[in-house]
Amino acid sequence: MSRLRIECFSISLDGYGAGLNQDLENPLGRNGKAVHEWFFPTLTFNKMIGQPGGTTGIDNQFAARGFEGVGANIMGRNMFGPVRGPWQDDEWTGWWGANPPYHSPVFVLTHHKREPIEMEGGTTFYFVTDGIESALKQAKKAAGGKDIRLNGGVSVIRQYLSKGYVDYMHLAVSPKLLGAGENLFAGLDLVQLGYVVKESTHGENATHIIFEKL
Amino acid sequence: MSRLRIECFSISLDGYGAGLNQDLENPLGRNGKAVHEWFFPTLTFNKMIGQPGGTTGIDNQFAARGFEGVGANIMGRNMFGPVRGPWQDDEWTGWWGANPPYHSPVFVLTHHKREPIEMEGGTTFYFVTDGIESALKQAKKAAGGKDIRLNGGVSVIRQYLSKGYVDYMHLAVSPKLLGAGENLFAGLDLVQLGYVVKESTHGENATHIIFEKL
Repeated sequence: MSRLRIECFSISLDGYGAGLNQDLENPLGRNGKAVHEWFFPTLTFNKMIGQPGGTTGIDNQFAARGFEGVGANIMGRNMFGPVRGPWQDDEWTGWWGANPPYHSPVFVLTHHKREPIEMEGGTTFYFVTDGIESALKQAKKAAGGKDIRLNGGVSVIRQYLSKGYVDYMHLAVSPKLLGAGENLFAGLDLVQLGYVVKESTHGENATHIIFEKL
Repeated sequence: MSRLRIECFSISLDGYGAGLNQDLENPLGRNGKAVHEWFFPTLTFNKMIGQPGGTTGIDNQFAARGFEGVGANIMGRNMFGPVRGPWQDDEWTGWWGANPPYHSPVFVLTHHKREPIEMEGGTTFYFVTDGIESALKQAKKAAGGKDIRLNGGVSVIRQYLSKGYVDYMHLAVSPKLLGAGENLFAGLDLVQLGYVVKESTHGENATHIIFEKL
């Protein structure tokens, strides 16, 4: 049974998954990178960017797990890039270079139609304009029985959580403050939605929390 | 120099310091007790309630620290009790029995005048009706050079934080969800207010975070 999983989603102590003022220089908004700092030293991240070495402790175990058994991905348009409004041209193909780390179909939620982009390494970006249920349905079909990873950003994750579609969520809570930005929890009653904390593990640079749906 | 300290303030993963519907049976609101569960097994808590035994690990170290060097306390009226509106009589003297765990003056913020209550063991409750600055001033005077502990609840802590009056804050983040309730962080930009994370320590049942003001 194909599950919808959130993996390695990093938030600050005050609940922000991204800072204010996202742009080309600050894809995660002001100070947003700080909440991801647990991820960068890991072997998994280094592999992802083609670098040698990296840590192999608890943080890396969670980082690696996030890629296991994933057959398709979903992300929001703001995670795909800084372009807003209608696509002006086909120039922007994501933050990740010619060979993105997904190696499977990626369904990008947007209000603006665009043709699929086939990248190196098995990643194809499909642009979905008819809503989150449609993206989920297409991703399930594409995943071929494997799981679907819901990558972010905050807004897309909140939309899927609020409908109860997420089966599994791993949050990495970083010991940082963002002060302002996109809050993951605000107005979202995860208890009412049926989520429970299954596991809490202290990594080297983040606390890893696993949530499951009852 | 007397500091204003928040100690052992417990919050859920989703940022709630208390649940909904606080009443006599649920002084911390619905499920609110869950965020304090790290505290109950400790030696410090057992001592506080006159019981033998208790854990002596990291959680206990933070619990014990919270009482060190404290010469006066401040709390909100909702933390003092479930009574709302004008005091009907002098019957309610707090949740803590004849000998409360404060052993020093406690300044209770309220809109309704009431005479001080002298309890056993050195605790006297003073009722302050002219605002948070007045309570802070009175507590400083009473503390005799020692620190002032700001006990809670969420609303009072937010008021003092938003004015930048808090010098030191220890939060115990419990691996629990409350889903709804009183959120500590909502709309409070701790970065802008000058707070930084000084320490993050993994206890047995909570993650302990120390914030200081730059």
